[in-house]
Amino acid sequence: MAIAASQLAADLGLTLIGDDVTLERVAPLHTADAQCLSFLADARHRSRLAETRAGAVMLRAADASRAPCAALVADNPALAFARAAAQLHPRPKPAAGVHPSAVVDASASIHPTASVGPLCVIGPDVSIAAGVEVGPQCSIGAGTSIGADTRLVAQVVVCEGARIGARVLLHPGAVIGREGFGFARDGVRWERIPQVGAVRLGDDVEIGANTTVDRGAMDDTIIGDGVKIDNLVQIGHNVVIGEHTAMAACAGISGSTHIGARCTVAGAVGMAGHLHIGDDVHFTGMAMVTRSQPEAGVYSSGIPAMPNADWRRTIARLRRLETLQQRVQRLEQALAAYAGDGTAPPNE
Amino acid sequence: MAIAASQLAADLGLTLIGDDVTLERVAPLHTADAQCLSFLADARHRSRLAETRAGAVMLRAADASRAPCAALVADNPALAFARAAAQLHPRPKPAAGVHPSAVVDASASIHPTASVGPLCVIGPDVSIAAGVEVGPQCSIGAGTSIGADTRLVAQVVVCEGARIGARVLLHPGAVIGREGFGFARDGVRWERIPQVGAVRLGDDVEIGANTTVDRGAMDDTIIGDGVKIDNLVQIGHNVVIGEHTAMAACAGISGSTHIGARCTVAGAVGMAGHLHIGDDVHFTGMAMVTRSQPEAGVYSSGIPAMPNADWRRTIARLRRLETLQQRVQRLEQALAAYAGDGTAPPNE
Amino acid sequence: MAIAASQLAADLGLTLIGDDVTLERVAPLHTADAQCLSFLADARHRSRLAETRAGAVMLRAADASRAPCAALVADNPALAFARAAAQLHPRPKPAAGVHPSAVVDASASIHPTASVGPLCVIGPDVSIAAGVEVGPQCSIGAGTSIGADTRLVAQVVVCEGARIGARVLLHPGAVIGREGFGFARDGVRWERIPQVGAVRLGDDVEIGANTTVDRGAMDDTIIGDGVKIDNLVQIGHNVVIGEHTAMAACAGISGSTHIGARCTVAGAVGMAGHLHIGDDVHFTGMAMVTRSQPEAGVYSSGIPAMPNADWRRTIARLRRLETLQQRVQRLEQALAAYAGDGTAPPNE
Repeated sequence: MAIAASQLAADLGLTLIGDDVTLERVAPLHTADAQCLSFLADARHRSRLAETRAGAVMLRAADASRAPCAALVADNPALAFARAAAQLHPRPKPAAGVHPSAVVDASASIHPTASVGPLCVIGPDVSIAAGVEVGPQCSIGAGTSIGADTRLVAQVVVCEGARIGARVLLHPGAVIGREGFGFARDGVRWERIPQVGAVRLGDDVEIGANTTVDRGAMDDTIIGDGVKIDNLVQIGHNVVIGEHTAMAACAGISGSTHIGARCTVAGAVGMAGHLHIGDDVHFTGMAMVTRSQPEAGVYSSGIPAMPNADWRRTIARLRRLETLQQRVQRLEQALAAYAGDGTAPPNE
Repeated sequence: MAIAASQLAADLGLTLIGDDVTLERVAPLHTADAQCLSFLADARHRSRLAETRAGAVMLRAADASRAPCAALVADNPALAFARAAAQLHPRPKPAAGVHPSAVVDASASIHPTASVGPLCVIGPDVSIAAGVEVGPQCSIGAGTSIGADTRLVAQVVVCEGARIGARVLLHPGAVIGREGFGFARDGVRWERIPQVGAVRLGDDVEIGANTTVDRGAMDDTIIGDGVKIDNLVQIGHNVVIGEHTAMAACAGISGSTHIGARCTVAGAVGMAGHLHIGDDVHFTGMAMVTRSQPEAGVYSSGIPAMPNADWRRTIARLRRLETLQQRVQRLEQALAAYAGDGTAPPNE
Repeated sequence: MAIAASQLAADLGLTLIGDDVTLERVAPLHTADAQCLSFLADARHRSRLAETRAGAVMLRAADASRAPCAALVADNPALAFARAAAQLHPRPKPAAGVHPSAVVDASASIHPTASVGPLCVIGPDVSIAAGVEVGPQCSIGAGTSIGADTRLVAQVVVCEGARIGARVLLHPGAVIGREGFGFARDGVRWERIPQVGAVRLGDDVEIGANTTVDRGAMDDTIIGDGVKIDNLVQIGHNVVIGEHTAMAACAGISGSTHIGARCTVAGAVGMAGHLHIGDDVHFTGMAMVTRSQPEAGVYSSGIPAMPNADWRRTIARLRRLETLQQRVQRLEQALAAYAGDGTAPPNE
């Protein structure tokens, strides 16, 4: 969609420096052409600014003089750019109404402004609010409620009794409310414990493609407002996640772990169950979290990849650490005996 | 569903101590009210017992005197609770029969007591036994057989030729029988090796949401009776898993690995291919299994997360382990030379 | 399908040694019977050759004299076997045409030799080339193009604007072109950055079951010709993967990482974002890749599982490495002081 830079400035409260220009789409600095809006948020990319052919660039005031084109000055260029991109690339909204191929229970309540796509299955007593988009082939279980302007992209499964907030985004293949992994032992057999809790997703939550969020065993699994979860993440039963926490792909959170607000969980982090993670806690990629971390901070584990031969030597040495420690102890004893006092090396 | 505590006692062979009470649902000790059944199985939660407002609590005989309410005494309170919960929260069973929107091949054989949900696709020569529930939008490939009382929750894909046992539970998004990841090299190209084995799931197997179980290359992939697999797990082609083994979310088992009976595999464990894991072997979370472990026992790897600064120092030291070892060796030589005998420190 | 060994030899350019035999299927050496074709590619299995009851075995010339049956001599027995298996086990192709239960936009262009399975949803302006097979319940977003002879097995989601090459294989549950995980911060809130790039899959690409490939933020996510990706893999936005690279299950590649050609990425490898991985780089299982690796070679990390008691001791020692280093330093100083020169141990 064509929009004037001056219009974007007016809409988003930015300052336009330079001639006005009509913009049609977004592009990175190095591939943009004269119809493109680009942006500079990360100082590491500043060298690309001088050479860009973009029509306009969003940037901080301090960088404006370096722009070879129109500059849209913002305090937070990434945020302003996100909003401008949404204006330049509006997503076509499907027509309101229920597609004739969908299978909808007579007791479901669907707001007239909502859309339900082809080949969906909507169970009994489902409630779908205004402006909701249910994409193709979704399945929504009995008694689920879905808040206004939420979007299920395609082939999402929401199991019975879930409560989904407003402006939530559920990506394809997400499974919300599977019966959690809870069993009692009967000798060597495992017997399933019925999972009668539900899943509650707050407002503005996002759940990635093929991510799974299990229903609670008795209490609910709760995902707070503004939480963003990437693809292929597992959220176990009775997990509670605080507001605005973000979690990258392939992470796995075991049952009953509570995570605070504003945390970040990087890719492939694994957390044991029944932990308490405080607010503003950050885990780096592939960290193995086996203890509660109530204090804010950055936590890590895992060994960065190295050439295979070095790695083999490192593992071998790690296995011999006990021997090394014993050798050091013997040296200390020998030196102490040498010094005659039996407790300390000679120069201490 | 309302059930008297005395009725549960009779049904499950428990002893009721205290006045009879009508129960309607289950809840944890700390949130239960007078209509709730709760339970105490883990001694760590004993302190919650005195303060519970539950109508009745399942517990061991030794704890019965501490209950402030009706006590249902069981040898295995978790197991008795699982069964009572199933009585209090019966899952509504869909009506028998094939939903008119399902696409069913004329050669498929579906028992009249089975149900096939809306928008399912049932291929040729599929056989579905008594009491089976196929939820919405499942796909069942040609020649598959499904045993009695098995349940496919929703959007499950079972590829051709699978043999599924009785009382199996397949969660949403599970993919059973994908052609495994087998290739021959043709120079730099990879050429697919046809995967002509099948998947066989025993009785009482459970496969989690979005979990994938690949078909065998030539022989079958075999999951034994009573095996429970959580969400987002990968089971490679020709894996064999023994009875009653349980596997938590995000684990990955490479092709042709055989795992014994009664094992537990914690979350995000990774196993290399062609391994032999014995019976009663237990792997803790995120363990990297690169060698066969025929002996029963508990095996682990992975570094627990620590503050990022400590972790950086630990990694740096790990990289310098060789240097440290050399320094110790030099010290030993120096001390030995000092002692004059050239082989041992002075006090040994 | 029954085929004479002599016919396979003629078709595949192999030498048949021994009597001709009719073959009906493939099987491993140890379970094959007289109607089976088997193969020996890995010298470790040579001991099984003498005892096989197979009708014919594919093998290298050097092994031919050991075969107790007909021998089909090939330079690359695994490759010849893959091709013979495809002949013996031809996959039934669905009839061309669109299943009446599919929901197809009027503007979609579907080649008359292509097949679209039951309950598929095909969006506006989709283009499907000759010989394509779209299995049951797939969803193909607006403007997507799919090259000749590509196969979507079942319940695949392709989001809008994707460009899929020829002879591509997309396994069940794969999600191609989800909007990537890109956000701008607005105080503590995360605001989605529209993802306006697409996904481009080259020819002969394979994407595993429940694997997710995100669309680019502005530029495209690009998977090169001949790339093979296993199940449950996450490919972040703007990742670029070179030709003939193979990636095993449960791996995760963060956004904007570029991987070269002919690499192998083993199971559960995790890569940080914005890395540059060269050609012919190989990562072993569960490696944590946090730095660019431009040089060809094998890279590894992760600690192999060990008995739990050993592991606990190893972790404890790892935590005390700093102390050990300090003890060694004190020993060096003590010995140096002893030697009187203050800098070196006595015998150096």
